[in-house]
Amino acid sequence: MSQTFARVELHTPYLLFLGEETNPLKAKTAFGLRDWAAESCIGQTRLPGGTIDLGLPEMTPAAAATAGARSLLIGVTPVGGRIPAHWAPLLIAAVEAGLEIVSGLHTALESVPGLALAARRAGVRLMDVRRPPDDLPRATGKRRSGKRVAMVGTDCALGKKYTALALARTMRGQGIDADFRATGQTGIMIAGAGIAVDAVIADFIAGAAECISPAAADDHWDLIEGQGSLFHPAYAGVTLGLLHGSQPDGLILCHDPQRTHLVSWPDYAVPELAVARDLYLQAARLTNPGARLVGVSLNTFGMDEAVAQQALAQAERALEVPAFDPMRSPLQRAVAAILG
Amino acid sequence: MSQTFARVELHTPYLLFLGEETNPLKAKTAFGLRDWAAESCIGQTRLPGGTIDLGLPEMTPAAAATAGARSLLIGVTPVGGRIPAHWAPLLIAAVEAGLEIVSGLHTALESVPGLALAARRAGVRLMDVRRPPDDLPRATGKRRSGKRVAMVGTDCALGKKYTALALARTMRGQGIDADFRATGQTGIMIAGAGIAVDAVIADFIAGAAECISPAAADDHWDLIEGQGSLFHPAYAGVTLGLLHGSQPDGLILCHDPQRTHLVSWPDYAVPELAVARDLYLQAARLTNPGARLVGVSLNTFGMDEAVAQQALAQAERALEVPAFDPMRSPLQRAVAAILG
Repeated sequence: MSQTFARVELHTPYLLFLGEETNPLKAKTAFGLRDWAAESCIGQTRLPGGTIDLGLPEMTPAAAATAGARSLLIGVTPVGGRIPAHWAPLLIAAVEAGLEIVSGLHTALESVPGLALAARRAGVRLMDVRRPPDDLPRATGKRRSGKRVAMVGTDCALGKKYTALALARTMRGQGIDADFRATGQTGIMIAGAGIAVDAVIADFIAGAAECISPAAADDHWDLIEGQGSLFHPAYAGVTLGLLHGSQPDGLILCHDPQRTHLVSWPDYAVPELAVARDLYLQAARLTNPGARLVGVSLNTFGMDEAVAQQALAQAERALEVPAFDPMRSPLQRAVAAILG
Repeated sequence: MSQTFARVELHTPYLLFLGEETNPLKAKTAFGLRDWAAESCIGQTRLPGGTIDLGLPEMTPAAAATAGARSLLIGVTPVGGRIPAHWAPLLIAAVEAGLEIVSGLHTALESVPGLALAARRAGVRLMDVRRPPDDLPRATGKRRSGKRVAMVGTDCALGKKYTALALARTMRGQGIDADFRATGQTGIMIAGAGIAVDAVIADFIAGAAECISPAAADDHWDLIEGQGSLFHPAYAGVTLGLLHGSQPDGLILCHDPQRTHLVSWPDYAVPELAVARDLYLQAARLTNPGARLVGVSLNTFGMDEAVAQQALAQAERALEVPAFDPMRSPLQRAVAAILG
């Protein structure tokens, strides 16, 4: 369904740039792209010394452009999160070959010496994916057509993006018209579109969320990446605005059963599942009175199978909706619960 | 209590600039300053045709500077909220006289032709009060010393700023160490400091709120201006982040008994007082488990006295805390409830 709305829109397919990186932990973005957006990844390119291998064809920017690539995507995070000066020649060569540059690093692409001029000459865009669109609207609060499922959590960083991606993939595999909707930088690269909601001006959080999951066909499902937690002393405002603007029909509560306190905020306890469910449902019902909990996603990473299954069974008893770990569990029951 | 924190800090006293305005409704900022920060208002200056009179001495910028003024404050809002080109000469004359310029209008002061250069030469600042400080931190969620009361509401624009100002004035009149803490542009001008929380990047809402009411003496009270409403489909994220960062000991629920639906969002009903109380308390207790409701502030503007008193009595019965209209009621009972 086509309409005009403010959103970051990337041009795919990508050439994945891996720099001179040797540590796979610093290449999570690249591996995420390969795993979740394989159809958007046409090749990889490295600098001398780089050892990360995604198993994609090695290509120069010019060769990638000839093969159909539209953007060079920076898939690694150097120490400090900044673009090193010695990357400039390769990035400039890429724009001269007609590729856009896609980056989630802190350095503004415009500030890389020579890059802005080269991009203007080549008529290509420099895409800092954390940078929100300039023309965000305030939220209307009006109901949109289509169906939406929001990932919400008892803390940050416990699998909300992964859950949404896995559910969207499973639903599409079943022939359901479903999209993953991105609200953070890695998600935007995977989806090719989205808005980093934590980077927008506070007045526009819910408005941005409305743009992220626009009106759609009645049988279309959006699986919306969550951010933060209503129980987080620093980020709950982002979470609430995102939830209101998403006006979800269904909520998936994401939780790490091994975590007792918030990561990096050790004075704050992770809430009980039922407490979290109640507050999320109350908040969601402001903009969608029909919102209901449809699943619980547990991050059981590192738990042994029997213990993980026990945790899943316990969560399912507590909340009376399907509990699953998208890394371990088949998702058919969760999808059935989403479809109602 | 002195400490380093990110906040907009203005230099007072002000010369109030009234342009060529003739409509008092377009001079609400100037009247608010005169009424709530009389000690910060040294004079007024107008352009030919201007008829607004605050009853302050008429002064040129140079004369005001000689008399001790530190800033020229734009006290009127022209149509469109922008600075007209013909104001530039007077603004430039003001900075040449050593005055800073304080503005809450949409036009960035830097963009007024000639003004930025003149300000740099004179070594004075151009203060767009809606622009947040550049160095906002993320919220820590750690308890700070001192006492805080947050104004919260069932909607926007129903008297939260006025309530906080009136309570702070009453408390100071009783010899209590109390400050009004500003979270919006007019409040910042009145207080001479603050942050426009709706203009900060979403990740920093609660962090900004922590900066607005810094650690203070144990018997010091901050009366914190509220923004938006937890029941507002566009702005609740701002409200929640502000509430968490404020970590209030007491809440004052602000309400307009004549309003059935949110202003400009007619699909959304104003919540019941008890429902609003419960959600605000639950949210506030994340960062201050001792938070309690200490008062209800009703905006009874336009109601006749008997009807207003009836509304106040009804709110007081419903919530079992003092109900008052800061425009009509003595505030001693409310202050007593705040002090516990």
